[in-house]
Amino acid sequence: MSERIVVVGFGPVAARFVDELLPAVRTGLVQLLVVGQESEAAYNRVMVAELGVGRTTAEALAMADAAGLEADGVDVRLGVKVKRIDRARQVAVLSDGSAAPYDRLVFATGSRPVIPNLTGLNPDPSGPVLPAGVTTLRDLRDAAVLRAAVAEGKHVVVLGGGVLGLETALAAAEEGARTTVVHNGPFPLGRSIDRGSGSVLTNSLRAGGVRMAGNARSTGVETAGPGGSFSALLLDDGSAIDGDLLVLSCGVRPRTELAEGCGLPTATGILVDHHLRTYHEPHMFAIGDCAEVRCPDSACVACRTATGPSGLVGPGWRQAEWLAEYLVVLARDGQDAADALEALPSEKPGVVVLKARGINLAVAGDNQADPWDEEMLEAGAISGRPRRQISQWADPEHGRYVKMTTRGGVLEGLVAVGMPRTAAELVVLFERASELPADRSLLLRLDGPDQLDAGATSNDPQRTVCRCAGVSAAGIEGSVMEGCSTVGEVSKATRAGTGCGGCHEDIKGIIEKHFQAAAA
Amino acid sequence: MSERIVVVGFGPVAARFVDELLPAVRTGLVQLLVVGQESEAAYNRVMVAELGVGRTTAEALAMADAAGLEADGVDVRLGVKVKRIDRARQVAVLSDGSAAPYDRLVFATGSRPVIPNLTGLNPDPSGPVLPAGVTTLRDLRDAAVLRAAVAEGKHVVVLGGGVLGLETALAAAEEGARTTVVHNGPFPLGRSIDRGSGSVLTNSLRAGGVRMAGNARSTGVETAGPGGSFSALLLDDGSAIDGDLLVLSCGVRPRTELAEGCGLPTATGILVDHHLRTYHEPHMFAIGDCAEVRCPDSACVACRTATGPSGLVGPGWRQAEWLAEYLVVLARDGQDAADALEALPSEKPGVVVLKARGINLAVAGDNQADPWDEEMLEAGAISGRPRRQISQWADPEHGRYVKMTTRGGVLEGLVAVGMPRTAAELVVLFERASELPADRSLLLRLDGPDQLDAGATSNDPQRTVCRCAGVSAAGIEGSVMEGCSTVGEVSKATRAGTGCGGCHEDIKGIIEKHFQAAAA
Repeated sequence: MSERIVVVGFGPVAARFVDELLPAVRTGLVQLLVVGQESEAAYNRVMVAELGVGRTTAEALAMADAAGLEADGVDVRLGVKVKRIDRARQVAVLSDGSAAPYDRLVFATGSRPVIPNLTGLNPDPSGPVLPAGVTTLRDLRDAAVLRAAVAEGKHVVVLGGGVLGLETALAAAEEGARTTVVHNGPFPLGRSIDRGSGSVLTNSLRAGGVRMAGNARSTGVETAGPGGSFSALLLDDGSAIDGDLLVLSCGVRPRTELAEGCGLPTATGILVDHHLRTYHEPHMFAIGDCAEVRCPDSACVACRTATGPSGLVGPGWRQAEWLAEYLVVLARDGQDAADALEALPSEKPGVVVLKARGINLAVAGDNQADPWDEEMLEAGAISGRPRRQISQWADPEHGRYVKMTTRGGVLEGLVAVGMPRTAAELVVLFERASELPADRSLLLRLDGPDQLDAGATSNDPQRTVCRCAGVSAAGIEGSVMEGCSTVGEVSKATRAGTGCGGCHEDIKGIIEKHFQAAAA
Repeated sequence: MSERIVVVGFGPVAARFVDELLPAVRTGLVQLLVVGQESEAAYNRVMVAELGVGRTTAEALAMADAAGLEADGVDVRLGVKVKRIDRARQVAVLSDGSAAPYDRLVFATGSRPVIPNLTGLNPDPSGPVLPAGVTTLRDLRDAAVLRAAVAEGKHVVVLGGGVLGLETALAAAEEGARTTVVHNGPFPLGRSIDRGSGSVLTNSLRAGGVRMAGNARSTGVETAGPGGSFSALLLDDGSAIDGDLLVLSCGVRPRTELAEGCGLPTATGILVDHHLRTYHEPHMFAIGDCAEVRCPDSACVACRTATGPSGLVGPGWRQAEWLAEYLVVLARDGQDAADALEALPSEKPGVVVLKARGINLAVAGDNQADPWDEEMLEAGAISGRPRRQISQWADPEHGRYVKMTTRGGVLEGLVAVGMPRTAAELVVLFERASELPADRSLLLRLDGPDQLDAGATSNDPQRTVCRCAGVSAAGIEGSVMEGCSTVGEVSKATRAGTGCGGCHEDIKGIIEKHFQAAAA
């Protein structure tokens, strides 16, 4: 008898999981039911801001074809919620009144936007009703609201200085909307960057047409606009920032209430071990934004330093891929064979890239120490580990800043603004844990006017181009040689570029290089 | 009738002045009397620390030959003081009981070391009697005291983190003496450098074998050594730094008491105008360390920003040269012709170079602003002047640091540690007020492992090699082509290398290059 698998949620990670299971569905090894709360099948949520400023279409964001999946034998339920789970009887109870018995259940419930505690906003996180003119940036409806405001040249106020908020504001400003970013602290991106890069980044954002309101504590929203819609964001110093649309970009929180409701342990997310199994319940799994990999073994070093759900699509996709293989082996060869599979490797701390025209920022790891900060440089230099070293180039007038934090010559942190080639090389060095040259200033040359050594980076075929889907330059070149000639075609063939979209320019470059070489 | 000129003092600046006047003495146009307090004729005081650690000889330091001067007709009085000056009768009264009538009198009294206010030290600046084991570093006797301590491997405590103190400590440490530098503030060199370079410099000094005791306030000396000699420097926190010899390196103060005694206005030094004339007394002049050029004209911009005596030998030499010409023209052609001479140009703020094996530091101008310090960057940006810009490279683990403070692309401040070629290029750009390349990181390449552009600097024949005597590379090359093959010979022929000695390696390089080219 075939194994019944129920997937709760139908976002990008669930879509990938379903994709990987399709062969087993076709052979009948697995019976698959996917329950999606939205009326659309999975789409690329990471690109919702791009859609909101009119740079891409809803069609381009689609990541699954419900009809096609149904034809393959997948049971897809859209616009339906899982109301509760009966663990004892292994049944999911759905909002349409039906019951879905399962052998395995996979939580892929993702996360929801954080609604800040402001007077005038409903603080209930499970069912926020936002006033007109206030939106988050999570789904296609949010994108449509932003799209209308940008199209009418309205004043957009973005609350939150994270990557999504900044990218949205920059794109909206470029498309002609008056845009203000309101954030805590002296610079955006908070603790992931340092004062130097924060200062340079702020200036670059201003140069990009975005007004930056830092060190701002918002306390409420004023809804004196037409029909009681948003008119101003109120700050704790008594001042207000006027606007027509408030975009809340204050981070996300994993959706764990369903798992909690059936008694599963959660922390920030649903707690799972290195086999993505929930605690005490090996029939249930969690992947993507809602999952927090932190095994119950107190001796596990990786979990002691784990930082909770990353909120990035790449790690979720790697979980989806791994879990699909695990469940297929389990269904086909039994528990012992599945246990023999290698556990999912721990994710390394992610690289965050700000993708915007005219602004380049890459950041990874810990960048808090300053070159003269003896205490922070000594931190972690225990049991013979070398101490941290820091090299820093600051040229704020030209919008450039790099800080490299190394231990034993290997990057523990990097932040680069306004130096795209240096940033790309540092990201490669970071991901490979390669040793930096002793003379760190060599790395600055990559962005020198002569770009002497630029080739050293961009010609390495093994480098990762799409970090979300984990696709190398060689993989993309392969697809181009087999006939792909647009980013869309490359994405279909290799999955490269289907995540955050930060590598689209790189993919374009590889395509162009191929055709230039062919023409020569 | 020939003009009677009396020079009070016989240090390096007086020696240069006498040298320049010699032709006029020989022709009888000028009668010259030089009164020197020490029993030796002028010697290179800047190199006393070098002498103290045994790296040079008293002979090599000699800058004047009393017997030779006498033979040329100069009246040289050594071991004699000017007791007082009778301005009304134009007579200097000497300590040997004689009287010296003058038409012109030139103060070249130099400066004396500052004796800090410590219990156990005589605070009277005009006649300090220091306990055994305590010395300043000003004359040949001081050098002999240091020499003996270094030769015996004693523990030398240097009080003061100025250039002289650091160079002395480094040299003493290299020659085998246990050495500690005690200084105020978090890093040495005080306000001329910034925190970044201070931190890198401190580490380099430690690596050079010098113990650094920063943020230290000394309150007294303990004299419990053999025969009541120095045994420890006492600090205000109750602690003490033990040692056998205390070298006081707390700066110098112009010797102005003789000028003050005859009623001339003084500030830090003896006040003189742009013709080096004392106020209200055009028969009297001051040059070198004792002179403070600050004219009585309140509209003079140069004097409004003048910073007092520089304490450097280069500006003193330029004054000596200029004044000698002025007095010759005055004696030969009269007041109108002398007045027609161009006034002495204002000194630009000096470049300070720390010369020590293994440590390279160059500093000039104002380096207090940090790249993010909006207030300091805006300072001075009045009446359409561009604001300051700062570029900074920090790689403390490799002992490297550069900060370039520019306005309109031209350096207002520079500090470079551990990057000798970059420093040399920046000094050239600073002195010429040349515009920096827009991409400042290009300058770092000069100290890159490949030294790609090093030739651009070191091949420029017009660059100043000896900043004290103002001698270009071309001038030194000329002397080498005419047969000079050692630094000493080049110094005799061109005066290059007779000041602080910081260019000796450069001169050696030029000599070697010449002989390599000749051999090829």
